[in-house]
Amino acid sequence: MTAEIPQTFPLPMKIEGIGRFLPRRIVTSKELEERCGLPDGWCEHKQGIGERRWVTDETVAYMGAEAIKEAVDDAGLALSDLDMIFCATNSFDRVIPDQASQIQAALGLEESGIPCMGINSGCLSFIAALDIGACLLARKRFNRIAVVSPVISSINADFNNPVVCTMVGDGASAVVLSRTLQDERSAVHAVHMATYSAGADVSGFSGEERRRTMFTKDVTSGDVAFQFDPQHMLKTGMRYGKNFLKKLWPLMNADSFKAVIATQSTRLSLEYLKLSFPADRIVSVIDRFGNCGAAGYGLALYDAVSTRRIQRGDLVLLYGMGAGWSIYGMVLVY
Amino acid sequence: MTAEIPQTFPLPMKIEGIGRFLPRRIVTSKELEERCGLPDGWCEHKQGIGERRWVTDETVAYMGAEAIKEAVDDAGLALSDLDMIFCATNSFDRVIPDQASQIQAALGLEESGIPCMGINSGCLSFIAALDIGACLLARKRFNRIAVVSPVISSINADFNNPVVCTMVGDGASAVVLSRTLQDERSAVHAVHMATYSAGADVSGFSGEERRRTMFTKDVTSGDVAFQFDPQHMLKTGMRYGKNFLKKLWPLMNADSFKAVIATQSTRLSLEYLKLSFPADRIVSVIDRFGNCGAAGYGLALYDAVSTRRIQRGDLVLLYGMGAGWSIYGMVLVY
Repeated sequence: MTAEIPQTFPLPMKIEGIGRFLPRRIVTSKELEERCGLPDGWCEHKQGIGERRWVTDETVAYMGAEAIKEAVDDAGLALSDLDMIFCATNSFDRVIPDQASQIQAALGLEESGIPCMGINSGCLSFIAALDIGACLLARKRFNRIAVVSPVISSINADFNNPVVCTMVGDGASAVVLSRTLQDERSAVHAVHMATYSAGADVSGFSGEERRRTMFTKDVTSGDVAFQFDPQHMLKTGMRYGKNFLKKLWPLMNADSFKAVIATQSTRLSLEYLKLSFPADRIVSVIDRFGNCGAAGYGLALYDAVSTRRIQRGDLVLLYGMGAGWSIYGMVLVY
Repeated sequence: MTAEIPQTFPLPMKIEGIGRFLPRRIVTSKELEERCGLPDGWCEHKQGIGERRWVTDETVAYMGAEAIKEAVDDAGLALSDLDMIFCATNSFDRVIPDQASQIQAALGLEESGIPCMGINSGCLSFIAALDIGACLLARKRFNRIAVVSPVISSINADFNNPVVCTMVGDGASAVVLSRTLQDERSAVHAVHMATYSAGADVSGFSGEERRRTMFTKDVTSGDVAFQFDPQHMLKTGMRYGKNFLKKLWPLMNADSFKAVIATQSTRLSLEYLKLSFPADRIVSVIDRFGNCGAAGYGLALYDAVSTRRIQRGDLVLLYGMGAGWSIYGMVLVY
């Protein structure tokens, strides 16, 4: 073997298009406050969430397909230009076949042969798929990769646990990744991930029911065990995240970033970031969408790109923590 | 962006170590024939399966951890030398956190920070993780990746469906992947994957129960819906697999390979390969382990390597089909 081995970074990856899908049913905080017996304005005050979307008949596959369609359209491409579909989620309609294949079918690409697979790192799956995708593109393994994160959490809403059930939202986001062209600046400049399973119980399913959750339709409210304690999460995040950003990018300068696309999990976690970054750089969409897990990064990115808050050539930080306990960071030029 | 873009192949990947774990309970075909009211010798004759392992108290995480330990030991390394753990399976103890993190905990690496994630392409997950791993190593994203495929299918055994329930086995296999050194020949020379979701219903879960299967302990026999029809599978495989190997490697010569490590799904599928390759090249372990899904490739590779049927420098074909409907092929020098 004598193949030349390039340095890791920069990776010539460009987010060529972006899309999203939001279930049509809007669930207001007022509705949930009444249902859970919470004081008026509690969600807004405690969580910063005014409303979120919850599915009625939308499936994981349908939501994923719609988000990909918009992303492909945004990139000025056709679905047939894709040569890989990564489904980056922990929501599944079925476990077998994998969710990505089910999305391929929902896209009408049943006979296309476009390869499909799932990348699973909980709520961090979206960043994980960008990380992997960047290396595959750099190595010319693929030319155009769709990364899609469709998430349905409302089916696990336990109305006896108002802190969690008022927080979760459903939604999907997708991007089309391609190799950067000669005269473009888009690139991945740093990636770092760390998993500390000592924190595995901070967030996730516990008890026996944990095994049957995160699947659409087979659970009824109360059957559920998705648990997390925002305060405990923040504490765990502070412990393991302490030196993370320095490891990610020793050049790290809080002012460098045009935008910080972070976990859209809780108001608390977004507030906490303001200790490290200028407040105006932190993109938040939890007011409208709640905590959409892995879909949240793409929803925030979509928001920032479509309002021109992020433009080509801007430096962006993707940064999140989630069940695992895992921490992920990616520095990219959009 | 001006980073040089190398050609895809060869990818400087070496399988540095290999390991497996087999549950201690051996389930003989005789036992299942009696239980299902099948004639004596039916499993051996129809499926080529003499026995398989089924878990008693072993979990997905435990099996995966044990297989990784052996692989790391085989490579002459320590667990702390790993810098990524890919869990390549569709069996989960829990969905959140991801199974890879749970394996990290079972390895006693809770505070290590070694990143963990899941790669899911059904029974093809093992090859998918090798494919991705090869690109990540080539790009120096990681230096030593553990790929582990722990599979528990017996919990879904439906004794009313003897064709499927007698076929499934539980087991785990793992490899440690590293970058090839200057004077070594190990490399990936070709990879190709195709997904045709038109074949999504050939194998998988159907009905409502499909959503709660593949999780340990929450299902009882009969609660199950994993279905596949070996004849239908073979037909689908023939249809979509027709020109696959030529696309994988135009230089394809049936005699080139020292060994063909194929889907260990049915005797029929392995027999069918004898139309394309010399019979003595096809590695089969279904007689002892049954169909262990994604773990099967590693179990067959382990067998071939430990009996010195495959040695350093030998050309090997990994080739399989599975739920999706997906087809995967990888040509590598061991």
